Amino acid sequence: MINDKCGVFGITGTRNAAVLTYFGLYALQHRGQESTGIAVTDGQVITARKGMGKVDEVFPDIESIKGLKGRIAIGHNRYSTTGESAAANIQPLMINSRFGQLALGHNGNLTNYRRFREQMETKGSIFATTSDTELILHLIAKSKQKRIELALADALKKVTGAYSLVMLTGHNLIAARDPSGVRPLALGKLRKSWVVASETCAFDIIGASYIRDIEPGEILVANGGGLKSYKLLPKKPHAFCIFEFIYFSRPDSIIFGINVDKVRRRFGRQLAKEHPVDADRVISVPDSANTSALGYAEGTGIRYEMGLIRNHYVGRTFIEPAQKIRDLDVRIKFNPIRGVLKNRRIVLVDDSLVRGTTSKKLVKMIRDAGAKEVHVRISSPPVISPCFYGIDMPTKTELIGSNRNIEAIRKYLDADSLGYLSIEGMLGLEALPDEGFCRACFTGKYPIPVG
Amino acid sequence: MINDKCGVFGITGTRNAAVLTYFGLYALQHRGQESTGIAVTDGQVITARKGMGKVDEVFPDIESIKGLKGRIAIGHNRYSTTGESAAANIQPLMINSRFGQLALGHNGNLTNYRRFREQMETKGSIFATTSDTELILHLIAKSKQKRIELALADALKKVTGAYSLVMLTGHNLIAARDPSGVRPLALGKLRKSWVVASETCAFDIIGASYIRDIEPGEILVANGGGLKSYKLLPKKPHAFCIFEFIYFSRPDSIIFGINVDKVRRRFGRQLAKEHPVDADRVISVPDSANTSALGYAEGTGIRYEMGLIRNHYVGRTFIEPAQKIRDLDVRIKFNPIRGVLKNRRIVLVDDSLVRGTTSKKLVKMIRDAGAKEVHVRISSPPVISPCFYGIDMPTKTELIGSNRNIEAIRKYLDADSLGYLSIEGMLGLEALPDEGFCRACFTGKYPIPVG
Amino acid sequence: MINDKCGVFGITGTRNAAVLTYFGLYALQHRGQESTGIAVTDGQVITARKGMGKVDEVFPDIESIKGLKGRIAIGHNRYSTTGESAAANIQPLMINSRFGQLALGHNGNLTNYRRFREQMETKGSIFATTSDTELILHLIAKSKQKRIELALADALKKVTGAYSLVMLTGHNLIAARDPSGVRPLALGKLRKSWVVASETCAFDIIGASYIRDIEPGEILVANGGGLKSYKLLPKKPHAFCIFEFIYFSRPDSIIFGINVDKVRRRFGRQLAKEHPVDADRVISVPDSANTSALGYAEGTGIRYEMGLIRNHYVGRTFIEPAQKIRDLDVRIKFNPIRGVLKNRRIVLVDDSLVRGTTSKKLVKMIRDAGAKEVHVRISSPPVISPCFYGIDMPTKTELIGSNRNIEAIRKYLDADSLGYLSIEGMLGLEALPDEGFCRACFTGKYPIPVG
Amino acid sequence: MINDKCGVFGITGTRNAAVLTYFGLYALQHRGQESTGIAVTDGQVITARKGMGKVDEVFPDIESIKGLKGRIAIGHNRYSTTGESAAANIQPLMINSRFGQLALGHNGNLTNYRRFREQMETKGSIFATTSDTELILHLIAKSKQKRIELALADALKKVTGAYSLVMLTGHNLIAARDPSGVRPLALGKLRKSWVVASETCAFDIIGASYIRDIEPGEILVANGGGLKSYKLLPKKPHAFCIFEFIYFSRPDSIIFGINVDKVRRRFGRQLAKEHPVDADRVISVPDSANTSALGYAEGTGIRYEMGLIRNHYVGRTFIEPAQKIRDLDVRIKFNPIRGVLKNRRIVLVDDSLVRGTTSKKLVKMIRDAGAKEVHVRISSPPVISPCFYGIDMPTKTELIGSNRNIEAIRKYLDADSLGYLSIEGMLGLEALPDEGFCRACFTGKYPIPVG
Repeated sequence: MINDKCGVFGITGTRNAAVLTYFGLYALQHRGQESTGIAVTDGQVITARKGMGKVDEVFPDIESIKGLKGRIAIGHNRYSTTGESAAANIQPLMINSRFGQLALGHNGNLTNYRRFREQMETKGSIFATTSDTELILHLIAKSKQKRIELALADALKKVTGAYSLVMLTGHNLIAARDPSGVRPLALGKLRKSWVVASETCAFDIIGASYIRDIEPGEILVANGGGLKSYKLLPKKPHAFCIFEFIYFSRPDSIIFGINVDKVRRRFGRQLAKEHPVDADRVISVPDSANTSALGYAEGTGIRYEMGLIRNHYVGRTFIEPAQKIRDLDVRIKFNPIRGVLKNRRIVLVDDSLVRGTTSKKLVKMIRDAGAKEVHVRISSPPVISPCFYGIDMPTKTELIGSNRNIEAIRKYLDADSLGYLSIEGMLGLEALPDEGFCRACFTGKYPIPVG
Repeated sequence: MINDKCGVFGITGTRNAAVLTYFGLYALQHRGQESTGIAVTDGQVITARKGMGKVDEVFPDIESIKGLKGRIAIGHNRYSTTGESAAANIQPLMINSRFGQLALGHNGNLTNYRRFREQMETKGSIFATTSDTELILHLIAKSKQKRIELALADALKKVTGAYSLVMLTGHNLIAARDPSGVRPLALGKLRKSWVVASETCAFDIIGASYIRDIEPGEILVANGGGLKSYKLLPKKPHAFCIFEFIYFSRPDSIIFGINVDKVRRRFGRQLAKEHPVDADRVISVPDSANTSALGYAEGTGIRYEMGLIRNHYVGRTFIEPAQKIRDLDVRIKFNPIRGVLKNRRIVLVDDSLVRGTTSKKLVKMIRDAGAKEVHVRISSPPVISPCFYGIDMPTKTELIGSNRNIEAIRKYLDADSLGYLSIEGMLGLEALPDEGFCRACFTGKYPIPVG
Repeated sequence: MINDKCGVFGITGTRNAAVLTYFGLYALQHRGQESTGIAVTDGQVITARKGMGKVDEVFPDIESIKGLKGRIAIGHNRYSTTGESAAANIQPLMINSRFGQLALGHNGNLTNYRRFREQMETKGSIFATTSDTELILHLIAKSKQKRIELALADALKKVTGAYSLVMLTGHNLIAARDPSGVRPLALGKLRKSWVVASETCAFDIIGASYIRDIEPGEILVANGGGLKSYKLLPKKPHAFCIFEFIYFSRPDSIIFGINVDKVRRRFGRQLAKEHPVDADRVISVPDSANTSALGYAEGTGIRYEMGLIRNHYVGRTFIEPAQKIRDLDVRIKFNPIRGVLKNRRIVLVDDSLVRGTTSKKLVKMIRDAGAKEVHVRISSPPVISPCFYGIDMPTKTELIGSNRNIEAIRKYLDADSLGYLSIEGMLGLEALPDEGFCRACFTGKYPIPVG
Repeated sequence: MINDKCGVFGITGTRNAAVLTYFGLYALQHRGQESTGIAVTDGQVITARKGMGKVDEVFPDIESIKGLKGRIAIGHNRYSTTGESAAANIQPLMINSRFGQLALGHNGNLTNYRRFREQMETKGSIFATTSDTELILHLIAKSKQKRIELALADALKKVTGAYSLVMLTGHNLIAARDPSGVRPLALGKLRKSWVVASETCAFDIIGASYIRDIEPGEILVANGGGLKSYKLLPKKPHAFCIFEFIYFSRPDSIIFGINVDKVRRRFGRQLAKEHPVDADRVISVPDSANTSALGYAEGTGIRYEMGLIRNHYVGRTFIEPAQKIRDLDVRIKFNPIRGVLKNRRIVLVDDSLVRGTTSKKLVKMIRDAGAKEVHVRISSPPVISPCFYGIDMPTKTELIGSNRNIEAIRKYLDADSLGYLSIEGMLGLEALPDEGFCRACFTGKYPIPVG
């Protein structure tokens, strides 16, 4: 399993701006649980509340949100990839500059951050955080442009990598997406309010409608009065993150204009075509692989069942003192249903294979529950290279797909057979639009230069 | 949806007693999230740590469990039915008596508590809690018996109602179950340790094996040395709670000796027989209705899909300030998948219908997502009478099944059709053993006198 | 230094009952910082909020007190003497009984608690706390009397020891004091409200006037309508705790009808008569010995100076990791003023000597600061016997006054001379009324039988 | 009363660096209770822990300090003057720059901060805080110097105002003081460790010895190996803050090389000379005026008594709901001792008069306690102008000394007489060295240009 980085949200033109952002962040909680924050402007002053933890921990009661007064707000859920888990790194980042107060929330990863920061430090800049997001703020401030949207464009021309941004000035909400469009960012509407969010599930929770995506390279300026679009960044080939479909996004979201659920089901059906097997039941690793498992079942005609139950109450457990309990880390999350598995040939569908350690334990758990055979099917290709655009993956040496061939992985997992979805099968699907997807984690070929 | 009351756990003969109880309570978290507590004995002194909140809130780190030293422990997750949410009511209850320190955890509800308490108060007893569990402790202390298990039997002969108990003395773990066996209680083994738990999923997490159920009317005394069984209570007809299968228990648990998952699937298949429909997709209200929906799909041959996504990150939200957002309470928890629902005739399977308010909103949500028809199927009979044995249900006037006929309920839900599983269909299944089940909530006929 | 036990407060007839109790507890914070609680009745239901910590920790904001609605309230600050620091022991204790809900706060110590509890346990009672206060509630419930004040009298006839009580029923505030009057309890008035408190400083903070003391053996019943006094307990010789004057009470309080400040000053003057010395400066161990040091200075004509500064910001320090810092425990609290001490002959006045460890370190600190001589004067006699009526003192073996003669103590302290106030000098003072004081800690003769 | 700004501490060459800093901050708690923080370097990486609240709140247990590993540490207690109470402003400020990580703690106030920040923002700098301290870090980074001490000197040449600094680099502790020496900063030694602190009371608590002051304009670089002093800043006339003696510093500290206690006593004696009065008792407003009141008593021959008791347990009270209680804000802190005041002519000595509101209430409190006359004596001159060098004073319009003449102030206070110490009397004292003191708050003449 892989942890992604960050969900962003923004809204204009409503005196419930902070509360609606709170619910938007709720719906985006799966994109980051390390920290969360909301910033709001009353037309002059930006006020923020941020903290470590999930939305319901940082905003435990109405009181905690009451101080956030104003009609434009942005919010951010963070899963750290660049930068440590320090309080200073909690987003939205807040600074003062010649544009007054600015608050910035960022999903993605800048690939030239380190080099750029070193250069700027050499020239006398100081960095209050270890987050790449601060670099954008520095560059905005250093731009000679007088208008903030032009200064932002100046800044974004200098950085490379992935970014879906929400920014708050004293009186505007600004949203921007990198020219390759690596991370998603959608535009919606709720009565007279403009809404932006990483995924459309954040629109659904507040009853907003999905209008369109913020386009790759687009800068949008919204406020109570209206919406302006700027296309100031050089065009680049698209590189939408395919992993958003595979694992990150919620199946009820529309990402890059496509239903996530639909794509996952077709992954499953295609996987069935590529790697059929003679078996009794198809089960999934819940919940991320549920839909592709359904697709696999549909494609093969093998009956789908729920063979593993996920414990959704699992919070922060400390398992150290109980290390002697074999495979406790997996047992805490999953439990097999013996009645489904016993004496049967099982197909276990998972969305991806990163280290392989959890899958290995799940195969064992399923065998211990009485399965006669366990066939592992992965609804994505082997991950062979880390992501530099905002997904938190282990290093190459830890990626099982990078170090072993399929047969060696099958042996490691102790599976009776193993099948991965092919890259061609993944991308040739009717559901995926004729646009460029970033598939670097499967190919090692990076569409955006890596620092 | 209905909230049940309490999960209990106990273990002997291991110096990891408190840690293993912690993980057992983790697996039983679905049975109660209001408060939790662990009590442990070192052979002489009982130490406890208790608090409001979930297991990971009351025990946030290893430090919080380090003080709990000893080789025998019990634990309790509480969802309050009798008694307020006061700190004094958090279980295990701890008292001092002529038997020394006692700690008691209770799942169930005593039906003669109020009358008994008034009598005892009149005679000069004081009650430190408003929990019916304290009554049992009073009665133990008042018994003339010298041995604790006999005193407990004395006490239990006097109370009526439902109880699955775990008790800690200075050097013993005692488990007991009421003669009707209303609530489940299972016995397991982990190497040399005896384990008891409300559901077997608590065994699975620590790697313990399921041995058998604590029998109705049985009192078990366990310690490092061994296990003794006492049958001191008068025999009564069994009245296993059928609702444990319908909603409470985890599908991966064995309850009353039967796989929950198996029963639910057969409920679904039987529902298909009783109420087939011409439709395009079967979807469930996740997660409790997943398995019966699969059964229904199997029975009817209609394809199963995931049409509603449940947001598992929902903690304690405060929705008051955002009341204007229509149906926010349901939107926070569920989101439809339009691709599955649009232009299709949908069968929505739910486990039960209590007030009907959530279901009504879900039907609307599914229609708004483009469904042509919505057929509601409930994998249990209409709930017409409240439970007095430990399930927290609304009063009769709030139970939609008590006040309207099927057609009126269908209209209220705005469903195209509505079908409930029949009582006969529910109980005549092969999967259910030839034993008596309590079905009072469906019939209004109470097997145990109600106070 | 000695830690005392508990402050109590009660008020009637105002809709600000809880808030005024909060401020009353603030003023009584010096009598106990372990836990605090407020209970309030709205005429029917008693609601309470209690917790570990000081008043500002348990009631950190207005929200925390808003739920406490009603016109009669009691409050309690606890420093544990009998009973552990368990949550169950936090006062006011709350129970249900044939008198309905009762809340009880207690300052003092019952000497026959252990024996009585054992008897009652043998007869079948259970104890939810390890606090002697619960015994009183049991005895009230067991009384055959129908009216609560008579039942309380019944109960109090059975217990021996010290108690100043505040009790809340559904519609009354009840205050009571043991027949010996060991602990103080004053009656005041604020407009139409009756107020009771351990010390009158709790009246001053809310602007109430001191009326009189609750008399030894008196039971007072107050509510909005009025005040009734009952003298139902057998008369006993008075045994007012002399230590309340020496150390416990605030100098701005009236205790047992006398100004604490006045008594302390006369202790100092008398000490000057008994143990004059040729020296340059008189300093005190702040703050408890300030007034007696002023009296000593006045009596001897030696100039009073502030030679030790007390750090009032000291909260809960953890000094373990810095144990290597010599005498850190004393340094954290006190710092010498070299300019006052250097090259001078110093008289150090302290209120009492219990273990002597702190004093020994202070003498060293003063010498290190350059004092030529250090003469220790104690404004009370040697403590030779522990208190059983509510003061938390070490055991006899730890009491330096019990184990060494004056010269040996002087050597231990490394003082140039040492003088204690005599028992005769202490009690023959004009300021002390012609009534019996308990001086058991100085004589070993206990006026009330010890269990 | 006036609140000062900040205490700083630093230590080198000990593996207990963080723990010793913790105790140093304890002793400096009176200089700021809003927030606190400790930063420590292990020779490479700087780690910090910071938070809102007092030392014992931010570091509640040993665990909280365990992560701070390294042999050089700095600490800071903050009372905000410049900059809001935002988390970002909590010191030590931490940044990354071409010098690597830097942590900076600052006591004082820069007078050209606003202008400078605007200039730098115009040129493209961003500010992560609203604290003037960040300006110094920007200037360090912008210096062309290669060595940190030279870059710091560069930066300090550009700022005006008051600063006593402690800074941490990866392997050095740096301390610096502005050329006017407005705020104190002392150098001490503990075995082989160098220690710096705002006041010497922080040395006493850990057993360190006072060596000398960091000189005005001096930059000190210390590490395990040694100590280097740099005099790189232009010489300026000294402008030691006289208010440090009057109110801020603890009486047990040595400030600017002089015992605070000694100065205060002489203030009192001089006040006696300037404003004698025929009265019965001298009392002080505890604790800050204790020593000057003793001096006044000595000078006049009138007996000193404790007439007001201060409640040292007062934490954060919320007094809003009890506004009806007259003068509650003063009652919470102070209580009169009637026995001392009744029927007497009282001299009330306070250290300074800022708004006059508290003093007015105290005069009333003393009269209500029965005093025949109340003569107010202030051991400093009238405050007529706010401080711009780090003391948090109200604006000129709120300063009672700025708006009324002595007689009008006396009437406002309802005092029988009022006497202030003269400026000449204050500064001509033997105890004060022949050096320049800043007395701007009394004269309106600012020795350092104000922005």
